[in-house]
Amino acid sequence: MRPRILTLTTDFGANGPYVASMKGVVLSRVPDVQFVDISHGIGPQNILEGAFVLACVVDAFPVGTVHLAVIDPGVGTHRRLVAAKMADQWFVLPDNGLLTYVAREHPVEEVFELENPSVARTPVSNTFHGRDLLAPAAAHLTLGLPAVELGPKRHGIVRLSAAEPRREDREVVGEVIFRDAFGNLITNVPASLLGETPPEAWEVELAGHRIDGLTRTYGLQPPGTLVSLVGSSGWLEVSLVNGDAARYLDCGPGATVWFRNKS
Amino acid sequence: MRPRILTLTTDFGANGPYVASMKGVVLSRVPDVQFVDISHGIGPQNILEGAFVLACVVDAFPVGTVHLAVIDPGVGTHRRLVAAKMADQWFVLPDNGLLTYVAREHPVEEVFELENPSVARTPVSNTFHGRDLLAPAAAHLTLGLPAVELGPKRHGIVRLSAAEPRREDREVVGEVIFRDAFGNLITNVPASLLGETPPEAWEVELAGHRIDGLTRTYGLQPPGTLVSLVGSSGWLEVSLVNGDAARYLDCGPGATVWFRNKS
Amino acid sequence: MRPRILTLTTDFGANGPYVASMKGVVLSRVPDVQFVDISHGIGPQNILEGAFVLACVVDAFPVGTVHLAVIDPGVGTHRRLVAAKMADQWFVLPDNGLLTYVAREHPVEEVFELENPSVARTPVSNTFHGRDLLAPAAAHLTLGLPAVELGPKRHGIVRLSAAEPRREDREVVGEVIFRDAFGNLITNVPASLLGETPPEAWEVELAGHRIDGLTRTYGLQPPGTLVSLVGSSGWLEVSLVNGDAARYLDCGPGATVWFRNKS
Repeated sequence: MRPRILTLTTDFGANGPYVASMKGVVLSRVPDVQFVDISHGIGPQNILEGAFVLACVVDAFPVGTVHLAVIDPGVGTHRRLVAAKMADQWFVLPDNGLLTYVAREHPVEEVFELENPSVARTPVSNTFHGRDLLAPAAAHLTLGLPAVELGPKRHGIVRLSAAEPRREDREVVGEVIFRDAFGNLITNVPASLLGETPPEAWEVELAGHRIDGLTRTYGLQPPGTLVSLVGSSGWLEVSLVNGDAARYLDCGPGATVWFRNKS
Repeated sequence: MRPRILTLTTDFGANGPYVASMKGVVLSRVPDVQFVDISHGIGPQNILEGAFVLACVVDAFPVGTVHLAVIDPGVGTHRRLVAAKMADQWFVLPDNGLLTYVAREHPVEEVFELENPSVARTPVSNTFHGRDLLAPAAAHLTLGLPAVELGPKRHGIVRLSAAEPRREDREVVGEVIFRDAFGNLITNVPASLLGETPPEAWEVELAGHRIDGLTRTYGLQPPGTLVSLVGSSGWLEVSLVNGDAARYLDCGPGATVWFRNKS
Repeated sequence: MRPRILTLTTDFGANGPYVASMKGVVLSRVPDVQFVDISHGIGPQNILEGAFVLACVVDAFPVGTVHLAVIDPGVGTHRRLVAAKMADQWFVLPDNGLLTYVAREHPVEEVFELENPSVARTPVSNTFHGRDLLAPAAAHLTLGLPAVELGPKRHGIVRLSAAEPRREDREVVGEVIFRDAFGNLITNVPASLLGETPPEAWEVELAGHRIDGLTRTYGLQPPGTLVSLVGSSGWLEVSLVNGDAARYLDCGPGATVWFRNKS
């Protein structure tokens, strides 16, 4: 049996009725769906954080997974809602940059704009397109129905160039994009951007602190040491051994980070 | 295949063992249940907030869904536990007002008091009727077994009249009942209560601020504007465009709100 | 059909990509798994809290359930990862004391160390063994495959003796190990440790306050009364009737509690 996996990523919070309403709409169409909540704690309207979370999980999910993501500052005004196929999985979301980081590794295979009113839940509200337009489209794809029925084919998706680190001569200038529950600060710099330079040749600067060299894992340095390392999904991060780097540095998403090649 | 959907709404918090214990009890009886967590972040013993959340989601769920709700200030003392059928769905909960808002739109079809000891998980604890009495009853209904086996038939459910807005001559006096993750303040005033008066004829007052007219969606006014609109489930709310109205107004559930007809 | 239940307990937080990544790995191997999130809000690296939560829920789950628990201060350094069978259920976790409280009631039936590289997700990262080693092993057991394929048989598991209360002549000295969403303070003292002494013969001391006798349930005393009682899973706790004991006492996990026999 083909699994019918539908993940959800929103900034709705886990405590309100919004996520459950979307799930109810999906269940009315796909009784045997397998839901996976990725996060409902994305910062309100924080597209970058949503983009990070989607890129982190995509390689862990099987072919055919449908990802429904609703971080939608533009709800009720004009912006495209799309279904995009990447990594043999579907992403159903507002086309506002949420796929920026997935698109680093995975080419866009197909994009359809959600325009077919017969797929929508009616009446369509002005403020909750997640429930009325996106959830029905995600359900449609989870059932394995043809994407072309969702609306017209489009070319490409929105990518936020401001969300990418700048590579300069001997340094990479990036940004903290996620603070995890341990206080680790994950940056938008992929390990691949550091190239062949050996780990010990880098100096990292964040929030006025400098870290000498990259380390391999959290446990190799004494407790309380500030370290930088390649995290489990291939992004560079700054951590405090056995501690909370975000609190220690009083720093979070949006902060600039420098990786300098000393060699 | 008939879906076996069981939703859960509690004030237990998502971080403890209580919700999982209830799910374990259900799974022992209904291995193929489809759980949907509506919210486990209802304010401790806040019946009104639970009532709001249930009413918001009911129309999104298919016929036959079973809703288990445990906001139960009276646990261990006398109050009725019931299974009530409304909107062709089952609600299994303490009969303490949790169905007040669902009952606005949906007549009570049947009510049974949970008194059959052979349905319960034994031994029945003094402090966790959610796990020992309500979860087994919800499992029973999810399996499609007869409701009459749960206990004697009753007539009607508790409705909290204090939870309803007052309609006066030229104004409606309501209350904020929910603050969502965006800081939107949702009131207990249904759009229907405003009748045929046009949106621009209303003035809204909340926390010492006045809002002129109702708007259609969040994105139509400049960022930072305080607006009032009909939310996605038909309740009036107060929002700050691209901002957090609750923080801006320093205001939350319990605050009084006035809708005045200026025409 | 045998249910394929896999529970998850972590200190990852519910808002990041880590839990979903583990679920994706499991779903790639067990499409029809039934996930139950026990908690992702365990305090960072708080083994004791994880141990409490597992012990609380074990009796509610059916035979064959697989529990995946990742509270892993030692990730990336040497510590055993194991699959342990207790109460006819499997526990897949770092062997760091997480089973201390389950082991109070349930003997260890079998233990296997996770050493078979062909079960792992590759490449194995240095920082996320939950996703790369533990989740695949849990998936393996959820499928009903032989535990012996995971690695060599071991004898016994780590139990934290410091996590147990001390029974002295006329008193039991324990520790608060969990604060729930209501502010109830649950201790590591099982009701069985109080023996046959009647409830009214005990005096409880916590955070400079004394409570005279144990009560049966929350609702029997006037609002605002500090009470001590046996909670729904058989652990002694301190509560404030209709209030938040943790806030009232300004007290949380780690605090010492005394149960003194006055008779």
